[in-house]
Formats: sequence, C-alpha cells, structure tokens
Amino acid sequence: MTIENWTQRFPGLAKLSAETQNLLLDKSNVISVPAGTTIFGPGNSPENMLFLLDGTVRVQQVSETGHEIVLYRIHAGQSCVLTTACLLAFEDYSAEGICETDIQAAAIPRTVFDDLVAQSKQFRDFVFAAFSKRITDLFLMIDEVAFQKMDVRLADKLIALSDGQDTIATTHQKLSVELGTAREVISRQLQEFQRRGWVEQSRGSVHLIQRNALENLAGHNH
Amino acid sequence: MTIENWTQRFPGLAKLSAETQNLLLDKSNVISVPAGTTIFGPGNSPENMLFLLDGTVRVQQVSETGHEIVLYRIHAGQSCVLTTACLLAFEDYSAEGICETDIQAAAIPRTVFDDLVAQSKQFRDFVFAAFSKRITDLFLMIDEVAFQKMDVRLADKLIALSDGQDTIATTHQKLSVELGTAREVISRQLQEFQRRGWVEQSRGSVHLIQRNALENLAGHNH
Repeated sequence: MTIENWTQRFPGLAKLSAETQNLLLDKSNVISVPAGTTIFGPGNSPENMLFLLDGTVRVQQVSETGHEIVLYRIHAGQSCVLTTACLLAFEDYSAEGICETDIQAAAIPRTVFDDLVAQSKQFRDFVFAAFSKRITDLFLMIDEVAFQKMDVRLADKLIALSDGQDTIATTHQKLSVELGTAREVISRQLQEFQRRGWVEQSRGSVHLIQRNALENLAGHNH
Repeated sequence: MTIENWTQRFPGLAKLSAETQNLLLDKSNVISVPAGTTIFGPGNSPENMLFLLDGTVRVQQVSETGHEIVLYRIHAGQSCVLTTACLLAFEDYSAEGICETDIQAAAIPRTVFDDLVAQSKQFRDFVFAAFSKRITDLFLMIDEVAFQKMDVRLADKLIALSDGQDTIATTHQKLSVELGTAREVISRQLQEFQRRGWVEQSRGSVHLIQRNALENLAGHNH
C-alpha cells in the first residue's frame, strides 16, 4: 500500500465505490506535521477533515479552570471526524489536538466532506460509525472517571502507555493530565507502586518491574 | 403553534425550505408516551429519530459494573440525534432514555432521516450542530466529574432540579445517579447541608431552606 491509494488503509473507506474513493484521493492533500505541533484547538479551527495515515494525535481538553484532561487519541487508520464536526459548528469548543509523534495525514477540505456526505450513503455510514465510536469512548471515560479507583486506572494507563516496552517516558504531571487528577495523587500512587516493587522511577521516566502485578490490578488477566 | 406544524418549534428546522419541512411533517408520526417509559436502551434500538415536542427524556448510562450515571437530558425543542446515531451504528451501546414526564414527540423513520441528510445542506447543518452540542456537553461533564468538588456539584444539581421551587422530589439514590457517585457520599453531604441549615430532608424529598447559600457554593452568584 502506498500513499497514493491511502483510502485502502481505512476499512470504512475501502468499501466505498471506486468513484468516491477517487474523489477522496483527488481532492485530498497528504501532509506531514512534526511531533509537538498543535494541529487544532481554540482559535485555530481546521478547514480540513484529517485521516491519519501515520502517527498519533492526542486530543485533550483545557477547561476554564485551567485543568487538562486527555479525552482520547487518534491513531493511524482513524479519522478526527468528531473534533472536525464540533469545530465546524461551535466556536467555543475547547479541545485541542497535539501530534504526539511525527504524523502523516490526508486532509480533506470541508466542502468536499460536505459533498461526500450528501452523495454517498456509504460515506455517511462511515461518518456516523466514526462518531458513534468516539461518543461511546466518551461514555466509557465518564464511567471510568466517576467510578474506577485511581490505582486501577493508573495501572491500566501505565500498561497502555508502555506499548509493550519496559520504560515509559513520562512525568507525574503528564500522567495527571492523562487521568484527570492532581499531580500529587499520581505521585502518591506511584510511590506506593514503587514500594511494592512494581515500578522504579527516574527523572522523566517510569520503569515497569512487575508488569504482571500491574496487569492484575488493572484486571487484564481475568 | 399547533402539532400540525411542529417543525416551527425547532429553530434549526424552521429555517429549512418549505419543501423539506413538508417532507418532515408528512413522514413523521406524533406520538405520546407516558412518564417512566424506557423509550430506547440496550436491546431496544429505535427505528426512529425523535424530536421532542413536550416533556423531558433523561439519558443515562448503565455500566458493566452496574453503576448508573445521568449523561444529559433532552428537553422540548431538542432532538435525540446523538443517541439515534449511536444506536444506528453500534449494537453494544449502553445508554438508555427514560421519559421523566409524559412526553409528546415527532418520530422520523431512519430512512427518512438518511434521505434528508443526503438532500438538505441545512438539515445536515442542523444534525451536526446537534451532535456538537451534545458532545460539548459530554466534554463539560468529564471535566466536572474529574475536577469539581462533590459539595459544589450537589449544590448545583439541587438548584437545577428545584426548577425554581423549594421542594425537590428525589432520593439519595437518585441524586447519586445524577452525580455519578455512591449513595453514601450523597447522604453525608446532604447531612452536612442540613447541619448548616441550608436544606431539610424528609422521606422522598429535599426542601431548600437557604437557596442563596447553595447558589453561592455552586458559584451562581458571581
């Protein structure tokens, strides 16, 4: 698969008619953006819908009280349909998208997006399925934030961020944004994990010593 | 305004062309449903999009762990576009809609909804604006659940539920579902409000004695 036929990378788009796929390929620009760039956010509305070909975008909210919380991540093979639609309709939308890695994306202008929604039932199905997935994720997150214990959530987050490796480059501050809590809460909990011999901490990173213990606490080993 | 031209009750629909409005009026059924009815939920997907003409629908989530939390309410003049789209796309959607009052709604079959999205740019704008509003509400709720103190949230919720009256028919259990917390947390906090002379409790209701003190705590009087 090459960049030239990027629609093949999205299961929902690969099913579209050849005509619709060609329209997408024709009207899109493949862009590259370096890690750390804020690609959308307050006062910086996108005029494009992005299909992520490579890399990861972190979508986080900055509340009026100055708190940050990570809402979800967009990975390669996913679109930012939710954020795009929000930003199209509401000026006061407060979420921002930050490239966690260098990314490559296909950018579709808003007018093309609108034409496709009008013309293709399959594209509409793709859009509404993408919406539903994100909204379901938000529902799960509300449930998690409201009801799950912080030690379980932190163990789960460490496993997810480790991505199979034993060292995670992160800080107490960053973890507090991931989990929507105070930095002190994270520090206290990591200290407890360290006391149990599950992790070791050093400046700017957390090393997983007993991954299995963390997975057990997070309920991954049922 | 009569039921016969109900589209006039929705600012976003009143702007549609006469043709599109007539299609909506023509293809919809006005239904009446008694208070307490579950109008959609797991295993009970709607085949209609509802436009609420009268009454209130409470949308709540039941998590796998058995916790309930109120996500939002649909009031007269609003549509349940978010839930509809979710239910269309995902089988395992876990939110349910319960009529809090007797309601009256215009029901549009799924196929008509899809035709309208295809045909009318204004209807698309209405749908995406409705999506954005709900999603923004969910973002705010995540922020609130994660960062706001429970005493502030409870004071705010009591003011909202009172609807200008001094007595609220509710229970500790119901308030815990509204706020996504344990019943014990609500009981403890209400006892504290009662100790301060702000509320009085009796079986099945809470009486607001010092509304102003609750409003101050909730930050309504800045």
